[in-house]
Amino acid sequence: MLRVGIVGIGFMGKVHVMSFTDKPMIPNATVKNAKLIAVCDIDPEKLEWAKTIDPELKTFTDFKEMLSSGEIDAVIVATPHYLHPIMGMEAIKQKIHVLVEKPVGVFTKNVEELNKVSEENRDVVFGLLFNQRTNPLFKKAKEIIDADGIGKFKRVNWIITNWYRPQKYYDNGEWRATWAGEGGGVLINQAPHQIDMWQWLCGMPNKVRAYCKFGENRDVEVETDVTAYVEYPNGGNGVFITSTHDAPGTNRLEIIGNNGKIVIENDQLSYKKLLVPENELNLIATADLRDPKNTPQFEETIYTSKELGEVPWGVEHALVIENWIDAIEGRDKLIAPGVEGIKALELINSMILSTFLNKEIDLPIDKDLYYDELMKRCATSKYKKRWSI
Amino acid sequence: MLRVGIVGIGFMGKVHVMSFTDKPMIPNATVKNAKLIAVCDIDPEKLEWAKTIDPELKTFTDFKEMLSSGEIDAVIVATPHYLHPIMGMEAIKQKIHVLVEKPVGVFTKNVEELNKVSEENRDVVFGLLFNQRTNPLFKKAKEIIDADGIGKFKRVNWIITNWYRPQKYYDNGEWRATWAGEGGGVLINQAPHQIDMWQWLCGMPNKVRAYCKFGENRDVEVETDVTAYVEYPNGGNGVFITSTHDAPGTNRLEIIGNNGKIVIENDQLSYKKLLVPENELNLIATADLRDPKNTPQFEETIYTSKELGEVPWGVEHALVIENWIDAIEGRDKLIAPGVEGIKALELINSMILSTFLNKEIDLPIDKDLYYDELMKRCATSKYKKRWSI
Repeated sequence: MLRVGIVGIGFMGKVHVMSFTDKPMIPNATVKNAKLIAVCDIDPEKLEWAKTIDPELKTFTDFKEMLSSGEIDAVIVATPHYLHPIMGMEAIKQKIHVLVEKPVGVFTKNVEELNKVSEENRDVVFGLLFNQRTNPLFKKAKEIIDADGIGKFKRVNWIITNWYRPQKYYDNGEWRATWAGEGGGVLINQAPHQIDMWQWLCGMPNKVRAYCKFGENRDVEVETDVTAYVEYPNGGNGVFITSTHDAPGTNRLEIIGNNGKIVIENDQLSYKKLLVPENELNLIATADLRDPKNTPQFEETIYTSKELGEVPWGVEHALVIENWIDAIEGRDKLIAPGVEGIKALELINSMILSTFLNKEIDLPIDKDLYYDELMKRCATSKYKKRWSI
Repeated sequence: MLRVGIVGIGFMGKVHVMSFTDKPMIPNATVKNAKLIAVCDIDPEKLEWAKTIDPELKTFTDFKEMLSSGEIDAVIVATPHYLHPIMGMEAIKQKIHVLVEKPVGVFTKNVEELNKVSEENRDVVFGLLFNQRTNPLFKKAKEIIDADGIGKFKRVNWIITNWYRPQKYYDNGEWRATWAGEGGGVLINQAPHQIDMWQWLCGMPNKVRAYCKFGENRDVEVETDVTAYVEYPNGGNGVFITSTHDAPGTNRLEIIGNNGKIVIENDQLSYKKLLVPENELNLIATADLRDPKNTPQFEETIYTSKELGEVPWGVEHALVIENWIDAIEGRDKLIAPGVEGIKALELINSMILSTFLNKEIDLPIDKDLYYDELMKRCATSKYKKRWSI
């Protein structure tokens, strides 16, 4: 049975440690196809906590030591964001399969390096913990889009503001919501899953104009409020809106194409399929707007989370971990290949860069410029520690 | 009984003419508190049509002649857009009360002059045909906002794409969707009511960055697809999205403030009132996100069009005409004072100007610059006729 290690025993690390036991933190969030052997953290208290969960766990305070110990075949990285690509690279180089928590990194410059190392080591399985890819509503949307159910993409609008974060949440960790500690705010911490879903469903835009508001309604360095306008190579466009201070929040995704529209909101997906594709209707419709023949007619299908087989938060994570293990052992392919993580990060970086420079950004972004701009903010960040392994 | 004239017997002019009879085009869309005496159009066929509706109608081909004929006390202007402010001014100067169809004009430069003339002639009642102000859902939203029901404004998002227009609609009138004939596209023709509602409910922004796509999916000169980002003086922000080629379209308005949220969609208004205002919750909530005390709690009230007393399209117009007549005769105040029309137009102009210049626009806009930019497009417009009275 595959021997797994976990590095970073913070909130998510604890969820993962417990998912390898028969008493998971989240009911039914159990990983059955592998064994947790070792944990690593620089904080001895975290390791003691892990021992209370499983006294047989091997503990490490040095990540490289855990990798080279011969005790593990695969490692889950749940450390602070800045460490993700550094640890990912180190693991791959040591031929240890790796599953990285979101986001894959903070800036694309070193994630590109990570991807390069991964491509040079195709025998090592590199996955990402994009648990939302197991969400049945998003899977259904992907299925409809892949089957050409909405036709040529035209417009997307996503308002996701239902992750309320009060000031004490930010004050809870000194690294939180700082440039040097976390490297961003709502985009890098709360939204990476949705931004991954966004590009998974709609593809990558080629132009971004975003307005990030840094410290809006919260005493933090980074963005707590974002509105981004994007354009796609095929002529489509979209808007992505997120914040941590809207109450009550909204989570509504609308995607429209030439053949129909998908709306996901309130745990259901509405799919409206046009009886006549828009470009054809445009050719045959007359100027008489009161004639129903000249207006879009559609069939609507509603899918609910419940009927599609809702997967609770936490169980999603266990499913992604099991999928990664299945991929390592050749039984399945990855739900979220690690090399795809750069796409969501590129979008995140482009939105922040657009605000830094107060202008439109063409994609792919200038990764060195973003790194330089980010480092300027890190230099004056109130978080002074630097991450290393 | 007040004697009314109508100028411009196109589609809306016909609706208005028939609303003064006991056989209105739209059931129950009858204006009872005044009498239609005269109609004016440059097209004799239109005047003949009017005679078939009421043989006693006096007919004019010259607007100034109708104004000075002594036959009418008040006039409804339903001519092409460019003529609205010119005719409005002429009527007011002749001491004839005037009700102008939307939009109040095409550019703010001459609408400012119109407003000046109106302010110099306060005895003349100048109204606008903003029929959406009688919509019970928007009236309810206004009532909630005016009663401080959502508190300090934070964010607005309006997607209004449910006015599908095929190519033949555009081909139906040579002036349609041309710079010289209509002066704009979806913003100036379809959206003025909603843009008025938008500023009525949220106030005026002070910064606009818009992406108008001219001729997107339709063979026309003007904008058929718009995404606008705006910022408000109080720090709030918003997005307005419209198009004429989305199918099936959406009409969803969300407004959020410190105390709650309003969403209008599918003929109903949802009002979520926070039990604790957001800025207070932010002070008392702790970092434990799993404790419901730390997340926004609210009471939701749903209002449907039906229960609030839905008013069909057309009947709304008759109500606004009756309100204008009541205002003339001192029985009521105007639902939509004419001088307020410039606000929606300022927003429309700013969105188009932002695209022309490919940059952010501060409000109020440079009205001479907009006029000059518009005239450049008019010079090469395929519509060659120039409007005059």
